[in-house]
This record gives sequence, C-alpha cells and structure tokens, in this order.
Amino acid sequence: VTAVRGLADRVRRGEPRALARAITLVENETAEGRALVGELYAAGAAAIVIGVTGPPGAGKSTLVDGLIVQARRAGRSVGVLAIDPSSIFTGGAVLGDRIRMGAHAGDPGVFIRSMATRGQLGGLSSAASDAAVLLAAAGREVVIVETVGVGQDEVDVADTADVTVVVLVPGTGDEVQAIKAGIMEIADIFVVNKADREGADRLVQAVEMALSLHAAPAGEEHPPVLRTVATDGTGVDALWAAILSSAQSDRPGGETRQRRRQERRLRRLVTDTVRRRLEVAIGKTELDTMVARMLAREIDPHAAADALVEIGLRRTASLGVAPAERRTHGE
Amino acid sequence: VTAVRGLADRVRRGEPRALARAITLVENETAEGRALVGELYAAGAAAIVIGVTGPPGAGKSTLVDGLIVQARRAGRSVGVLAIDPSSIFTGGAVLGDRIRMGAHAGDPGVFIRSMATRGQLGGLSSAASDAAVLLAAAGREVVIVETVGVGQDEVDVADTADVTVVVLVPGTGDEVQAIKAGIMEIADIFVVNKADREGADRLVQAVEMALSLHAAPAGEEHPPVLRTVATDGTGVDALWAAILSSAQSDRPGGETRQRRRQERRLRRLVTDTVRRRLEVAIGKTELDTMVARMLAREIDPHAAADALVEIGLRRTASLGVAPAERRTHGE
Repeated sequence: VTAVRGLADRVRRGEPRALARAITLVENETAEGRALVGELYAAGAAAIVIGVTGPPGAGKSTLVDGLIVQARRAGRSVGVLAIDPSSIFTGGAVLGDRIRMGAHAGDPGVFIRSMATRGQLGGLSSAASDAAVLLAAAGREVVIVETVGVGQDEVDVADTADVTVVVLVPGTGDEVQAIKAGIMEIADIFVVNKADREGADRLVQAVEMALSLHAAPAGEEHPPVLRTVATDGTGVDALWAAILSSAQSDRPGGETRQRRRQERRLRRLVTDTVRRRLEVAIGKTELDTMVARMLAREIDPHAAADALVEIGLRRTASLGVAPAERRTHGE
Repeated sequence: VTAVRGLADRVRRGEPRALARAITLVENETAEGRALVGELYAAGAAAIVIGVTGPPGAGKSTLVDGLIVQARRAGRSVGVLAIDPSSIFTGGAVLGDRIRMGAHAGDPGVFIRSMATRGQLGGLSSAASDAAVLLAAAGREVVIVETVGVGQDEVDVADTADVTVVVLVPGTGDEVQAIKAGIMEIADIFVVNKADREGADRLVQAVEMALSLHAAPAGEEHPPVLRTVATDGTGVDALWAAILSSAQSDRPGGETRQRRRQERRLRRLVTDTVRRRLEVAIGKTELDTMVARMLAREIDPHAAADALVEIGLRRTASLGVAPAERRTHGE
C-alpha cells in the first residue's frame, strides 16, 4: 500500500518514469494497478479524453499527430495511448510508433505510449481506461486514445473517451467496410480523412445518409461529418475546434452521453469481476468434466453453463469478498 | 414444451420452414430457442461445421459459393449461416446474399440464412453456435458459418466450427491489416484468395513467417497456407480437400483443439449466464446511483463494480435459479 501511495504521488507530480511504470501495472491488470486507479481517479477530472478509431490504413496516426500539434499550440500537454492490436505482421504499428516518437522527441509536453493486447483479444478496454485515468492524473490536459478497427474492443475503449472521433477513408470500399451498428453509438465526430481522394464526396454523403436514418437520442445532436487531409494538415484545425466544442459537458445531451458511457463501462466491469470470481470458484476438474460431456453430446452447452453457474455462485456467495480484493479496493 | 418438441421433430425431419423458424428463435435468444438446442444438440454430431472468416472484400462469399459446389458434387447437403455485421451502409451484404441465394435457388440441398446483429455488438457468437446446432440436427452434412472481420466476435464464432478457414487478400495492405494475435489460434487453414494478384507471394510468405514464429501447440501442426482464385474456382478443390482432412478428429491434436474450443465456448456461456442474472438482481436505481458517484469522481469504476457485484451475488445466491430458467433448461 505504501509503495502504491508513493508511486501515486510521483504520478501526480507528472514524473514520466513513474507514469510509465504505473501504466505497465494497469496493462498487466495487477492489484497495484487497480489500487493506483483508486488513488488517482479523482485527480484526473480536468483532462479531455479523446478517442480516435477507424479501420487500418485510414491515416489515424497522422491525424493524431496533427491533433498533438494543435493541442501543443494551444499550450496544452498531451498524453497518447496507441492501442496496438498485436499484428502478427509486426512491421506496421511498431515502426509507425517509432516515427511518431521521433517527431515529438524532446518535447516533455508529449507522452506517447503503446499498449498491446499480448495475444489476448478483448479485455483491453479496461486497461486502456485505467491508463487514461493515470495520464489525466499526471496532469496531461489532453489524453488521446487511438485504436484500430471498429469492433467490440473499440466500442469499449470509446466509453473511456469524452469525445470519440471515427476516421473513415474514401476509395477503399469504406461503404461496405464492416462498420457495425455500434459505431453510430460511439461517434461524436466522423472524419473523412484523405478527403482529396476520389470518392470523398460519396463517402461523406453515405455517412450523412446513414446518420439521417438513425434518430439521434432525445436532446442530442447528430455527429458532424468533417473532412481532413492529415498529411498536409488540411481540416485538422477545424477538427480540433469540433473536439473542444464536443467536449463541453453543457452541450446538448452531453451529460446524458457521459452517463451512458460510464454505465456501459460499469456494466462491463461488473461482468469482468464476476467472471474472475467464478473462474476461481469453479474447479478445473469440473470444467473439464463438463467439456467432456459436451463433446460426448451428453449435455448441451447452455445446460452445462447453467450447472457450472449454480456451483460457482453457491461457492462465491459463501466465500464473500476474497482477501486479495479487500486489500486492493479498500479505502 | 410440447410446441418446442413438435418444432424439434420438424427440424429433425429437415423441414426448411421449421428450420427457419427455429433459427429465428435462437437469433432472438428466446427460451424456446434454448430449449430447442437442448432437444437437438445430440442429433447434430455427424455434421462438419466450417468457419470462414476474414476482412471485408477478401472474397469470402465467392469462396463459400465454391465450397458449396464442392460439397454438392460430393453429394453432401449444405447449410450456410452468413453473419451480417449490420453495416450502416446496408447495400453490400444484403445484395450479396440475394445473388448467392439465386445461384443455388431450386436446390433443396442448399439452405442459406443470414443472421444479423440487430444493432448489438457481441453476443452473436452464442446465437450462431446455436443455429449451427439446428442446421446439423436438420441433417445438413456440411454447415458453413461465414463471418466478416477478425475481431472478438469472429474468434468466438470460430469456437463453433470444427475447421476454421481464415481468408486474406493481397494488395490491400493485408500485411498491416489489423490481424490480431487471436487469429493465429483460430485458423486451421489460411487462404490467400485473389492469388493471381500482385503481392500474393509476399502475403503467403508473410503468413508463413508469422506462423513459423509461433510455436504450434504440442502435438499439433501449423495450419497450411493455400492459394485460391475464387472467381474462377482455382484452388477451391484443394481447399475442400484440406478442410475434409482437417475435420478428421483423429488428426494430430484434433481432439485437443476441439476440447479447447468447447471450453472457451462454455466459459463464455457461463459469463453470459451470470451477467444476465446480475442484470436482474442489481436494480436500475443502484446502477444509476453508482454511475452518478463515478461521474462526481467520488468512487472509481473498479470499486463501484465491486460494490454492485457484492449486492448482486448476495441476491442471486438467495434467489437460486429463477423460475423462467428452470422452465427453459429443465429436462
């Protein structure tokens, strides 16, 4: 506990090495990491957290670079979390990060950190949320969380952000790119990047049409659809202005939106917490036996799950809070 | 219960309308749907379930068409589940399905069905698994489950399949396309489609290199990397042969792989079941209060989740199995 307090103090003072260590602790989902988030959660209220997501090749990294420049010009310090989907082809993302590090090297106002999934899909959103809390507590006034793709992971990460920017790109078949329904929910701002390319107008129209078909929630506005050419900076200032405007919590529906995101995050954490407890409560032998019965077609998967849940809940309830968790989450 | 038995009998006899209705029941996650799966789980043991996944535009639909032709030539009946990611741009997927339906119209040996996420991300894998059980029970000897993308949803759906084919395509930056680490785990066969395009050799090499860096689990082989040109049928017969070979459960590591997939599926169902129960047990007021405290920064998300889990588990344990669940899953 003392070690955690000490590290929390150093994070609060904005020490880069302490921040880096703290992020590793939440990335690895350790008890210390959770305790840090508990210590530092209140300290990060002032930061703007910006989520940037979109399909691979949409130019997100270049756009984020442009946003960093805008934020620095406005005198704000920046923290960037680049969520690396652990490509099996390791060339792309890592090299890209190196280049970006270089562009802002020597500027203590910019802190860039990659977070990887380390072979596990899902479960990254909680670590990314926690890391954003740490960056905010360390005094980063603008925190940018960059993710690749538009799947469940990205929707989850978006719940961490005050403002989520969804980046699309013309000419690569974005119209049929698997833009799932959830994307309509997470986007506060749509950006058509590489807007000097053929097909940009068509893509803007397609997005606007799709938006017009969706009713905006009561009291909320449809997200704007902006155009940028990140490589030469075109439209990035307008994007920055739109982000600042969207981040104002007194804008129409702003509070409702924050509440909805926090509620989704809380629901996910509740599920994660219970899953972890059940994994302790249900023995490996019981699980293996049930799988064997499923393979032999003696029991169907739903009935097998129900049986294990019964066992797990009975044990979990009688155990109460595990000692390790008390230590971690206690005041 | 009688209605479910009657419908189950009709599904077992392979009646297409009964099958369509049964799939709708599992798609909507109804109690009747689950009861049907319980009734029919044992009946589907003989079918081969093939998963086909990959990024949008990889030519999966055309490849699946080729596999249907191969299966029909071998005298086997086919059921196809096309998982529609509910694109906000509704043009693509739906139109594609119509065309495919046309190609096999009038052949009672081919049953094609789209399943949509209806605005909800995630949660589709369980419905897809259940639908595959129904198709198998209806006597479809080959069941193909086609999904778009390489995210968590697709990994989950792959756990349903006996053989999973991951389709990639050269020249669209596949090397940096977000192929997440989980893909190495799910692929039994890699296919480089549109193999007559420039960059096909490079992509095959990149995949083979990535595979060589990953140690195959003990007693298991690395997945083969095949080439196809689905539009003219090149390589599809070799793919079909590789699928049949991979589906043999006595191949090296085959049983271990099945066990691992069933275990993952069971773990997911356990989590889903508990989440549903907690959602009933935790009142909306309690959830809202906790969200308000999070927004006021009075409590951090982990501590809030722990508190709700305590409340939920206490109530769930004292309630025992809910009457509705008893009705659904009882013998």
